[in-house]
Amino acid sequence: MSAPTEPRRRGAAVETTVLDTTIALLAERGAAITVDDIAAASGVHKTTIYRRFETRERLVAAAIRRLGELEVPPVDASDPRAALEALAVSVAAALRSPRAGNILRAAIAASAATPELVALADEFFRDRYELAREPLQRLVDAGVIRRDLDAIIVWEQIVNPMHVRTLCGRSTGDDAARQLVELAVRGARP
Amino acid sequence: MSAPTEPRRRGAAVETTVLDTTIALLAERGAAITVDDIAAASGVHKTTIYRRFETRERLVAAAIRRLGELEVPPVDASDPRAALEALAVSVAAALRSPRAGNILRAAIAASAATPELVALADEFFRDRYELAREPLQRLVDAGVIRRDLDAIIVWEQIVNPMHVRTLCGRSTGDDAARQLVELAVRGARP
Repeated sequence: MSAPTEPRRRGAAVETTVLDTTIALLAERGAAITVDDIAAASGVHKTTIYRRFETRERLVAAAIRRLGELEVPPVDASDPRAALEALAVSVAAALRSPRAGNILRAAIAASAATPELVALADEFFRDRYELAREPLQRLVDAGVIRRDLDAIIVWEQIVNPMHVRTLCGRSTGDDAARQLVELAVRGARP
Repeated sequence: MSAPTEPRRRGAAVETTVLDTTIALLAERGAAITVDDIAAASGVHKTTIYRRFETRERLVAAAIRRLGELEVPPVDASDPRAALEALAVSVAAALRSPRAGNILRAAIAASAATPELVALADEFFRDRYELAREPLQRLVDAGVIRRDLDAIIVWEQIVNPMHVRTLCGRSTGDDAARQLVELAVRGARP
């Protein structure tokens, strides 16, 4: 055989390699990466990549889904207000890295090119919001946040300004993140 | 000459035709449109389009900039709180149309493919935020919103959750828009 032979690797391992390479390239170069780039960088044949992921957009989607599984910031369990603030500061810090902007834009670009991937963007954000669910519920239980509210709205008012700033190439400092928490929690007082 | 002749139109008129066609196609089909699609739908030669806009991404960027100039919702001049609410409800209504989601995603996809267009996304959002500047300043002057705050943060907490929901294929109802205003304005009280 004249074609280069691919090392025998179990399917799951190949998938992990391809996805991790895709995440690294998205973070480094942004959404403009091609399946050829990913094949070259991962050492996995392009045809293997297409067989597993069908389209470039589905591959990007799968990579972003995997990223969501990987990056889970720790939550302080004692004071729910402090936990919410720590979470907001950690989101701001994560979004300040250039890779976060590239990955956010890549996720949205993938959903722009393939409408059924809009649900992926939704899933990605909802998964992240779940991290705030517990401290928010404890703030509701403590009477700090109104009970007649879907408390996730408070979290949207904290993190969505950070997301949109990131998409616009602007960042949120730690103090600015704390200010967003302060404003949102005050606004939701009973 | 066997090639089809393009009608003589002044440069500005050709640009307007191309940009309006691009907006219509982005809104209808999303970011996946090609310059061939735009050439066919606008009746302007592809080479003319490339001569004027250089790349597909720059054309999308110019179309989105033009859209920003076109759609300016009216602002009630009497009560600044009511004006802010009316503005928020009009943003929610605009974002509920499928075209808004397609155009938002297309703007971000263009900036994902061409990093220098990230500044365009920033410009686009900032232009929109300016609409809220006047009622916000009047709320500051009336002592309803803290003076030690960049009041645009209040507007980010109102509209950015709507933007991210739109990107995720979800919508914001009029009552939900009013709730975002209520929470954000309460949070920013002195």
